[in-house]
Amino acid sequence: MQEDTSVPSKNVAFVLHGIHDVRFEDRPVPTECEDDEAIVAPKRIALCGSDVHYLVHGRIGDFVVEKPMILGHETAGIVVKVGRKVTNVKAGDRVALEPGRSCRVCPSCKAGHYQRCPDMVFAATPPYDGTIAGFYVLPADLCYPIPGEMTLEEGALIEPMSVGVHAVSKVGQMQHAANVVIFGAGPVGLLTAAVAKGLGARKVIAVDILEPRLQFAKESNLIDDYFLPPKPQEGEAKGDYPRRNAKAIRQRFGFGERQPDGVDLVIDCSGAEVCIQTSIHLLRHGGTHVQVGMGKPDITLDLATILNKELTMKGSFRYGPGVYNLALDLVARGAVNLKALISHRYSFRDAPKAFEANQKGVGEDGRPLIKAVISGPDGDDL
Amino acid sequence: MQEDTSVPSKNVAFVLHGIHDVRFEDRPVPTECEDDEAIVAPKRIALCGSDVHYLVHGRIGDFVVEKPMILGHETAGIVVKVGRKVTNVKAGDRVALEPGRSCRVCPSCKAGHYQRCPDMVFAATPPYDGTIAGFYVLPADLCYPIPGEMTLEEGALIEPMSVGVHAVSKVGQMQHAANVVIFGAGPVGLLTAAVAKGLGARKVIAVDILEPRLQFAKESNLIDDYFLPPKPQEGEAKGDYPRRNAKAIRQRFGFGERQPDGVDLVIDCSGAEVCIQTSIHLLRHGGTHVQVGMGKPDITLDLATILNKELTMKGSFRYGPGVYNLALDLVARGAVNLKALISHRYSFRDAPKAFEANQKGVGEDGRPLIKAVISGPDGDDL
Amino acid sequence: MQEDTSVPSKNVAFVLHGIHDVRFEDRPVPTECEDDEAIVAPKRIALCGSDVHYLVHGRIGDFVVEKPMILGHETAGIVVKVGRKVTNVKAGDRVALEPGRSCRVCPSCKAGHYQRCPDMVFAATPPYDGTIAGFYVLPADLCYPIPGEMTLEEGALIEPMSVGVHAVSKVGQMQHAANVVIFGAGPVGLLTAAVAKGLGARKVIAVDILEPRLQFAKESNLIDDYFLPPKPQEGEAKGDYPRRNAKAIRQRFGFGERQPDGVDLVIDCSGAEVCIQTSIHLLRHGGTHVQVGMGKPDITLDLATILNKELTMKGSFRYGPGVYNLALDLVARGAVNLKALISHRYSFRDAPKAFEANQKGVGEDGRPLIKAVISGPDGDDL
Amino acid sequence: MQEDTSVPSKNVAFVLHGIHDVRFEDRPVPTECEDDEAIVAPKRIALCGSDVHYLVHGRIGDFVVEKPMILGHETAGIVVKVGRKVTNVKAGDRVALEPGRSCRVCPSCKAGHYQRCPDMVFAATPPYDGTIAGFYVLPADLCYPIPGEMTLEEGALIEPMSVGVHAVSKVGQMQHAANVVIFGAGPVGLLTAAVAKGLGARKVIAVDILEPRLQFAKESNLIDDYFLPPKPQEGEAKGDYPRRNAKAIRQRFGFGERQPDGVDLVIDCSGAEVCIQTSIHLLRHGGTHVQVGMGKPDITLDLATILNKELTMKGSFRYGPGVYNLALDLVARGAVNLKALISHRYSFRDAPKAFEANQKGVGEDGRPLIKAVISGPDGDDL
Repeated sequence: MQEDTSVPSKNVAFVLHGIHDVRFEDRPVPTECEDDEAIVAPKRIALCGSDVHYLVHGRIGDFVVEKPMILGHETAGIVVKVGRKVTNVKAGDRVALEPGRSCRVCPSCKAGHYQRCPDMVFAATPPYDGTIAGFYVLPADLCYPIPGEMTLEEGALIEPMSVGVHAVSKVGQMQHAANVVIFGAGPVGLLTAAVAKGLGARKVIAVDILEPRLQFAKESNLIDDYFLPPKPQEGEAKGDYPRRNAKAIRQRFGFGERQPDGVDLVIDCSGAEVCIQTSIHLLRHGGTHVQVGMGKPDITLDLATILNKELTMKGSFRYGPGVYNLALDLVARGAVNLKALISHRYSFRDAPKAFEANQKGVGEDGRPLIKAVISGPDGDDL
Repeated sequence: MQEDTSVPSKNVAFVLHGIHDVRFEDRPVPTECEDDEAIVAPKRIALCGSDVHYLVHGRIGDFVVEKPMILGHETAGIVVKVGRKVTNVKAGDRVALEPGRSCRVCPSCKAGHYQRCPDMVFAATPPYDGTIAGFYVLPADLCYPIPGEMTLEEGALIEPMSVGVHAVSKVGQMQHAANVVIFGAGPVGLLTAAVAKGLGARKVIAVDILEPRLQFAKESNLIDDYFLPPKPQEGEAKGDYPRRNAKAIRQRFGFGERQPDGVDLVIDCSGAEVCIQTSIHLLRHGGTHVQVGMGKPDITLDLATILNKELTMKGSFRYGPGVYNLALDLVARGAVNLKALISHRYSFRDAPKAFEANQKGVGEDGRPLIKAVISGPDGDDL
Repeated sequence: MQEDTSVPSKNVAFVLHGIHDVRFEDRPVPTECEDDEAIVAPKRIALCGSDVHYLVHGRIGDFVVEKPMILGHETAGIVVKVGRKVTNVKAGDRVALEPGRSCRVCPSCKAGHYQRCPDMVFAATPPYDGTIAGFYVLPADLCYPIPGEMTLEEGALIEPMSVGVHAVSKVGQMQHAANVVIFGAGPVGLLTAAVAKGLGARKVIAVDILEPRLQFAKESNLIDDYFLPPKPQEGEAKGDYPRRNAKAIRQRFGFGERQPDGVDLVIDCSGAEVCIQTSIHLLRHGGTHVQVGMGKPDITLDLATILNKELTMKGSFRYGPGVYNLALDLVARGAVNLKALISHRYSFRDAPKAFEANQKGVGEDGRPLIKAVISGPDGDDL
Repeated sequence: MQEDTSVPSKNVAFVLHGIHDVRFEDRPVPTECEDDEAIVAPKRIALCGSDVHYLVHGRIGDFVVEKPMILGHETAGIVVKVGRKVTNVKAGDRVALEPGRSCRVCPSCKAGHYQRCPDMVFAATPPYDGTIAGFYVLPADLCYPIPGEMTLEEGALIEPMSVGVHAVSKVGQMQHAANVVIFGAGPVGLLTAAVAKGLGARKVIAVDILEPRLQFAKESNLIDDYFLPPKPQEGEAKGDYPRRNAKAIRQRFGFGERQPDGVDLVIDCSGAEVCIQTSIHLLRHGGTHVQVGMGKPDITLDLATILNKELTMKGSFRYGPGVYNLALDLVARGAVNLKALISHRYSFRDAPKAFEANQKGVGEDGRPLIKAVISGPDGDDL
């Protein structure tokens, strides 16, 4: 199938004005960029929970939408123009976009942790515009050429996949032949699981309460197997439920409590307190918990177990250097299958429907929505 | 001063029979040991909070005193006899005792984490006898010769100091020139602080609510400076108090929120929830929290901050390989001053008074008790 | 096929008396073992270059055969009897043997580096007997049960495979999705390559001068691809040849000179000076060279390149904790195919023929010998 | 003493035209800089061996002086003007200059290894001008404010000191309480030794053949002690001399061959083959050798010992992120004494004399030259 590589004549953007108030608006077409920048025409934008969250709540934590903001940040597109000094891409290239522009000169940026840059400009994080528009301008080194056999919509998924690569490889430092358990089978959880498998994990188990998602993931070979927790028992003491689930997971999959057969790495993509509590009882002595999912701010944990088992808990925030390269390479050589995750596709003008379906978790066709992708505007779109 | 190096003719032991029920008892004098063991006559035993806890509560978590148990595990003594294959020590040597006998053959032991051995035999942890007695038999490799210029009572403090070495060096992997904050100025907290300084920390700050202890620590050069938290304000939201203290500590000592001038490492030796909460707000992005102090089991933490700042939280349990060597060397070359910590000394027959004073935190002399040391029985004692 | 699990009635051993002087001898049948030991009847012993080296030269470096020594150390067998305290195996179990008994109590052993133990007792390293015999006695924790679907001859290959696991995983700390080049396509080189692939390497390239071995390895899927170096050119400066080969390998397989597309890890299993020199020019900036192969003692290296590219060179010696577990698991779950490597099989009485063929590198059938396996004596053998 | 903080009215530069051909030349005074840059007036420039090497040989390896080049790169100065976006420094600030401008966007730069940037612009490395001039323009983030109590000449020495910080801390990852041996007692060797001590090494021993330098270093407390190798014995086999020296160093300072009392880290700042050979025999099993000194390109090493002892050899090139901050902090808090190293001072117009003395290793006063510092031009100088 021939992908659309046209350059739009207008710059129509999908702009959030307030809670549940989004509008299509004409913005100026960018014609000039800095020496090290590129102008890109977004062609595929995948939706993220955060986009929907801004639409519905107008904020995420301290980030508040106080003026109109273009939504979208999981993006692939066509390079339209590059600055004088740019050599890594050229007009016409199909590229995946890394949507965070860091300052380059603060100690965090220089030390290889640009995700910690205090001056980060991140697409569709207030007050910065996102990518659901005719054009997006960014530093050219944040444009990654998409290998020939990959589609643009796969390219758009490199962004959420990078969250998984960062958690598994950089933060979690997954050991060779690790036993890995992923809590949460939403898009980020499944991508994280697929990354762990693609990087050589011994066994990857997903845990969620929605069995159809887990079955889909197993059938799509994104995970090795899954665990569906039973309901809490009536009268069960609060602390007993996570212990019981941890024990059940260990027994079901033959995991021990220490090396060499224990659970080495848990990555929580759910943000649910009970999942994190279960993780602490599930991990082997000396194991590592990586937190990716954001839930309620205050979580109650069993400190004695963390101490006695010498556990490590780490927070994983977005992604840093080298992550996009690794994600693209995993997909290009078939180690991670992104195609399976794209359940729904929308035209640019149907963006509102995509948001609505994403919020519901179900498409108009009644099928569960895993990942929805919106096309960028055509040449004459809207 | 000449130290007592006599070998007792009897084996009198200080035995816990039940809550607040301790008795002096005659035990058989050991005359034979395995080929790889040593028989040691304990000469100085320092008291630990856990010894007192068993006396007062009869248990610590899952460890319950169900039959008579000799107390004491922070010990230095004189080697009385060694097995046929022993070469590292000989009769007459002054030695610090490592009180945990691990199995040597499980994966944890072989991988260099013997503190995680499921079959650990640890002195004065039920059901295993401790060291407040005439004799103690242990594998000879757990006997560490005390350098000439060190005293036996310093030797007894190598055990709690090793908890600090493990937390700072092995678990915390303190970076070069680190900014370190220690919560809790009890014996373990102060030893941990002194270890951090001795290993080259840039700045070591202690936090506690007992100013005299902090002043003592600063005057003894165990820490660089200290912070005494103000009381919570009336009507202050629960989450605001730790944030406010974290900010106050940063401002007072010039710490930033990121590298290179942030707090790199916090070691909590208090076990207090509010301290751990403060730590999370205090640490720089990418910083590390090490948990040493055991408090109430369930702790409520701000997960969003752990995630956004990419923090690491680790549990530190006892100590592992190489720790005793490092602790002894730090003391021997004057990098850590143990003498300052020994505030009270008791004869063997006054062991009950030592426990009482330890429980109160004050000696009979009215002075705050930092660390109490009991002498072993003399040749004809009791 | 039913494997032989009989227990021999005699203890016939294959004993090296001097250069090219090997004899079958009757040794006493062991009937008792220590509490923590096991008596094993070896059933399959694979031959290693070192066995042949002792036969031909009577020594390897400082290790000299000065009294009769039983040969063989790559072994799988049947447990005949276990000591009183043994729980990990029982009589009748099929086990792979780890042939090095370390002291357990020296700092290296306790720190998780028992391969550095100065008192190591290693099978068929003078003066210690090896395993080509009716019985072998060793600590039971060095007996690893062989999973049901694995054969005893595969079990015997766990030992050389462990050399590869140690080099790739423990010493080389292979990064996720690494580009790996292996110099030397002998048994250890091919096992190392297969381990790198099994642990998730992105691309594994073997380099050797014997194309049939490389073709065999590629066809057996032990490597992704290979490079056959051209001959040095007449008059070519000594330093130019390795540079030329390094450049050719980079071009052929699309490797760059830095991250993210450079060669991350080279493991030299050849011991050849020119290979190590090539490695230094081949590795990306910041890459790692691991030395496994032992060649002539003095090697001339380009120090300026090591410095300018900030390379790391590490020596890898035998294997340490956890390696056998990882090797067995890789084979059990099909991530490494050992069967492909066993090219020749010999009965116990034909052991001399096996050594002869191994020395020649060719079996009696004219086919290249990759790995030869000798059966242990039957019940009434010899 | 009031330091000169005047801004010159002219831009006189010290320019290398060819071998032994240096000239004072007028260059245009820079009046404008980019938004993120600063214009600095160099006030103190310390001489490095590389400056002298270009003067004498016209090249270092592949770096050839093909057109006139201003010399000097170890520099402190006064900020004259900053670009619009600069916030870390302002006009009038005293600053130490990091003389390497990297591209910021290549994978090496982004991953925190900017010393590996292929497009590095480094002062006084052909074809880029250095700092012995009235003005120097650089990115403002490479200007580090000098704390109040530090002098400008100390500020100039932060550059060579950073080479030591990188080698000890980043590349060598010196363990806590390490035993460290430094080969080569030139300026970089002594700075490296002082850094190791300042970061908490247990014992720092320097090795050189010039005893006066070693004595000076010991008296200045830059090292703990030193070793002066004996001459090779007549007829001594080539390989025996390094072995003999390694053994002598171990015996003299009580170092063992393994943990916990062996030599953990050797940093070679000599570039001499015999030193590197000695290092390999000196290091404990599992120890690390870091190569800083550049000598002849081809070095012959004992591969068998590297392998059997599982050594690590690493190249250390210049310095990367965070190193200047750490170096400045060590000096500011008195952990490293730079003043001791500055043996000779020259006015700007006497720069040729400074180079001559540096080449000879002796000042006009007959005293050994450790480090020579040249003043920048005054307001009306030359």
